[in-house]
Amino acid sequence: MPLMAKYLFTNVAGSFVLDEDLRIADSILFKEAEDYLYKAHAESELRKKHPLLQRLPEECIPKAMAAFKDNRFYNVFYRINLVLAKQKVREAVSDDLLIAHAVNNITDIEKVVNILVKRLRDWYSVYNPEASEAIESHEKFVDIIIEKSKDELLSELGIKKEYSMGKEISKKDIEPIISLGKEIRMLYILKNSQEEYLEAAMRRLCPNMTEVAGALIGAKLINEAGSIRHLATMPSTTIQLLGAERALFRHMRNKKNLPPKFGLIFNHPFIQRNMRQSGKAARAFADKISIAVRVDYFRGTFIGDKLKAGLEGKFR
Amino acid sequence: MPLMAKYLFTNVAGSFVLDEDLRIADSILFKEAEDYLYKAHAESELRKKHPLLQRLPEECIPKAMAAFKDNRFYNVFYRINLVLAKQKVREAVSDDLLIAHAVNNITDIEKVVNILVKRLRDWYSVYNPEASEAIESHEKFVDIIIEKSKDELLSELGIKKEYSMGKEISKKDIEPIISLGKEIRMLYILKNSQEEYLEAAMRRLCPNMTEVAGALIGAKLINEAGSIRHLATMPSTTIQLLGAERALFRHMRNKKNLPPKFGLIFNHPFIQRNMRQSGKAARAFADKISIAVRVDYFRGTFIGDKLKAGLEGKFR
Repeated sequence: MPLMAKYLFTNVAGSFVLDEDLRIADSILFKEAEDYLYKAHAESELRKKHPLLQRLPEECIPKAMAAFKDNRFYNVFYRINLVLAKQKVREAVSDDLLIAHAVNNITDIEKVVNILVKRLRDWYSVYNPEASEAIESHEKFVDIIIEKSKDELLSELGIKKEYSMGKEISKKDIEPIISLGKEIRMLYILKNSQEEYLEAAMRRLCPNMTEVAGALIGAKLINEAGSIRHLATMPSTTIQLLGAERALFRHMRNKKNLPPKFGLIFNHPFIQRNMRQSGKAARAFADKISIAVRVDYFRGTFIGDKLKAGLEGKFR
Repeated sequence: MPLMAKYLFTNVAGSFVLDEDLRIADSILFKEAEDYLYKAHAESELRKKHPLLQRLPEECIPKAMAAFKDNRFYNVFYRINLVLAKQKVREAVSDDLLIAHAVNNITDIEKVVNILVKRLRDWYSVYNPEASEAIESHEKFVDIIIEKSKDELLSELGIKKEYSMGKEISKKDIEPIISLGKEIRMLYILKNSQEEYLEAAMRRLCPNMTEVAGALIGAKLINEAGSIRHLATMPSTTIQLLGAERALFRHMRNKKNLPPKFGLIFNHPFIQRNMRQSGKAARAFADKISIAVRVDYFRGTFIGDKLKAGLEGKFR
């Protein structure tokens, strides 16, 4: 009995024509993952040779697959499936992942600068404690000690040199202190450029949320939610408390503690400006963020400026 | 009755000639701290005018000071004492303090680099995970990703580009990753120069200990002991366990845990080479360090090379 071509069936190993007993009657084998991606081409070739082919019904697939337990298919299954899986991994990387890394890196740099600045102040104070005392801002302190000598600094502060508690140390001993200062300045510069990058990336990915919440807080919200999709599906009250989970659960365990009013959004100037009615401000702010991020996720038009104006109008 | 000049008494306010009732008969007042430091000059002037002056007996000082409760002395007492106190503070800064800061800063930089390198690897892996996987050393990883493109790296690893799991990202998105890498490379360079500084400072301050224990471990021992003087007065068994206090006290509370064999010295190559008789090696090593630091503290001659050779001779 000649084989009757009946079904068309395609998997990563190739396009196959099966007979009624689901044995392979004809085939075009695939060599590369691309062949599988352009499988329509192989299928149309087979259809030309065997007219009236039906697509293999779903319930027959398990049985049909038995024919592929053959060793000669093992290699191609392994190879092409691996390439396809890697492609899926590659495509799963979305822009929010890059944004999450960028915002976490900014937090890292802040932490790192704090560690190093503390050491710099302690170390420099051996030499010139009055200057460290007088300059509060870390960033300014770093700039000044790099640029000015001890004598210049003391005379600016109006302190006579012999009244200073700092020890005169040799130039060799000052050098490593100043190198540390220069390194910290580089870290400040890096942090600024990473913030600029984040701002641009956020404006591209979610212009509305960036307008309402700012790049840094917007990015932290995405990072905390896991992805922009997750954030877009959250109720606004969840957004309001994102990042305050510990305080929230402490309240839920033990009703003595008040519930938190805000999480990550706390640091935004809008909340800081409206501290006298902070709960109300936080609710309204989270509301607008939630609208903005949904518009962003569904690629709507730009309404960020209107949302922001509405918010500012309410609290004056 | 004319005043009888009898006693000579000097304090920070001036040099004074007192009569028998301890009232001021003559004086040279001081204006600056320097006048007090060169008080011999003022005293010899007064001795010229009043021959046969005796120094005020110690038991009379409290009574004599009553004369200085006068308000006109308040200002000069305050001012000159402050300057003198500041001078004392200034002089209390010794070289070990600078060394302690330098070695702590090296530890800080190591911590900071670890934080940033972890972020760099995660972030870069979005783009090129295979390279991060293949290069184990952090320092080498940083150098390579700065200098080589993804394509170069993949072809060196023998990976076809379409088999890579990394996403193709735009040049703009790669830039912040590479800047982070460059910053980390700067931190490695800073760490090296701080280590060179420490080596030189240690060779100056304690050449013998540096020869025996190395600059980094020597400096950590000084830092842990508080000062080189403290370290020089410690028994060698204490030096052996310095930095292992937690393990030691855990052992003392609860005899189930074995006592520690070494603290900070553990990382020295000598101990690492002799792990099969580590307790014996640690004892001998701490012994030599203890001798070396005492010779250093009392400014003895250089015997570091002999100590080291003796140690190496014992364990072969």
